Amino acid sequence: MNPEEQLEKLGLELPPAPKPMGLYKPVVVVGNIAYLSGHGPLKPDGALICGRVGEQLGLEEGQAAARQTGLAMLATLRGALGSLDRVVRVVKLLGLVNSTDDFAQQPQVINGCSQLFADVFGPDNGIGARSAIGTNTLPGGIAVEIEGIFEIR
Amino acid sequence: MNPEEQLEKLGLELPPAPKPMGLYKPVVVVGNIAYLSGHGPLKPDGALICGRVGEQLGLEEGQAAARQTGLAMLATLRGALGSLDRVVRVVKLLGLVNSTDDFAQQPQVINGCSQLFADVFGPDNGIGARSAIGTNTLPGGIAVEIEGIFEIR
Amino acid sequence: MNPEEQLEKLGLELPPAPKPMGLYKPVVVVGNIAYLSGHGPLKPDGALICGRVGEQLGLEEGQAAARQTGLAMLATLRGALGSLDRVVRVVKLLGLVNSTDDFAQQPQVINGCSQLFADVFGPDNGIGARSAIGTNTLPGGIAVEIEGIFEIR
Repeated sequence: MNPEEQLEKLGLELPPAPKPMGLYKPVVVVGNIAYLSGHGPLKPDGALICGRVGEQLGLEEGQAAARQTGLAMLATLRGALGSLDRVVRVVKLLGLVNSTDDFAQQPQVINGCSQLFADVFGPDNGIGARSAIGTNTLPGGIAVEIEGIFEIR
Repeated sequence: MNPEEQLEKLGLELPPAPKPMGLYKPVVVVGNIAYLSGHGPLKPDGALICGRVGEQLGLEEGQAAARQTGLAMLATLRGALGSLDRVVRVVKLLGLVNSTDDFAQQPQVINGCSQLFADVFGPDNGIGARSAIGTNTLPGGIAVEIEGIFEIR
Repeated sequence: MNPEEQLEKLGLELPPAPKPMGLYKPVVVVGNIAYLSGHGPLKPDGALICGRVGEQLGLEEGQAAARQTGLAMLATLRGALGSLDRVVRVVKLLGLVNSTDDFAQQPQVINGCSQLFADVFGPDNGIGARSAIGTNTLPGGIAVEIEGIFEIR
C-alpha cells in the first residue's frame, strides 16, 4: 500500500496547495531532503482555522486544526513532487500551537497532524522526530503552524 | 551577477560579524549545508534593535529589524565562508518576531529579511522555505530573531 | 578522551531515555545526521522540571533545567546509537524557554545544556549553532524544551 492509494482509501480530500503568505517557497528540496515551510490549517474552501487554543478553541478543535494543517502539507508535497509516493518518511516536524499562557497540551494538539501522517505513510515512516511548543500569537491568528523535514526519493 | 557584486551594487553595509551571546557558534557547516544560529538585528554600531512589535515597534520598524537581522546573517556567512559567492541558495529560515498577543503580521515582518536575500542572491536562490512565528519574548529584548539553513558550494 | 569516558569521568547520571509525550520518535537518523525531538528536563526519577522562568523559576533554576534536558538528550542518543562515541558533533540546537513576557535571558538559560555538551563532547564538537528563544507556554508546563541536530558516525 503506497501513500497515494492510502489517501484514496481513507477518502481524504486535500485542500488546494497553499499559496505563500510572504516571500517564501512552500518547499525547497536539497538532495533527498524536502524542507517544508510553516503551514497553517487551510480548509478546502481556502479559509484558515483561526483562534487561540485555551480561549476560542478547545483541545479537540486544536487537534482538528493540526490535522487540517497536515492535509495542507500533503497538498504542498504532492504539488512539488508530483506524487506522495515519493515521500520516504517524515523526518521531523516543528509544531506551534497558538496558546493561552495556561494551555499546555501542545503535543496532544499536534498529534492531530501526526496521526494523519501515520495513516497516510504508515506507523513507522509516518512518525518522525517532533517538537511541539506553544506561542502567544501566529500569523493571521491561525491556530496551528507546522513545518516539516521529509526524506524523499 | 554574483552575490558579492550584488551587495556592492546595492550599496549595502554589513554590520560586524556578530559575537555569540552564549555558548554557541554563529554557523556550523556539515557537507554542503550551513546551519546559522539565531541572529538578532545587529546594527553597524554594534547595537541591537529591541522592542516588541505591536507595542514599542510598528510593522515597518519590525521589517527594518528583520532586514538588519538578514545583514547580520550575511556578515556571519561571509566571515565563515570567505565570500557570499559560496552560497548556492537559501534553504529555510525560521523567523521569530517579538510580538504582542494581538500582533499577527509575522510573515510581513520577516519579509524584511527575505527581500534582502532575494536582492542579494536573486529571486529564486534567495527565497527559500520559511516559517514566521510570534513569541512573547526574545533574548535581550530584541525585536526579531532569525536562524537559517543555506546550501553552499 | 571519548564522550562515554568523559561522561563517566564527570560522574554524570543519565535519566532513563525519555518516552514520547505524543506521536513522535525521540530521534530519527537520515544518513549521518540525527534529528532529536524536543526534549524536556527529565530527572532520574522520571519527573519533569516545570515552571515559567521569571515567575516560578529563577535564572539558575532555568539553567539547571536546561542541563537536565541535555542529559535527557544524551540518554536518547545513547539509547538510539548504542554509544555516545558515535556522536561526531553538535550541529544545531533550538532551545525554548518557558518565559514571562519580561524575561529575556534565554541564551544564559540554554547555556546550561550547551555547557554540558561542551563537557561531554569537547569545547569544539560540543558547541554547535543554536537558537534560544522564549515562549509563553510549553507542554505540561515544562521549563525548557530543546531539540537538536547531531552529526554521527
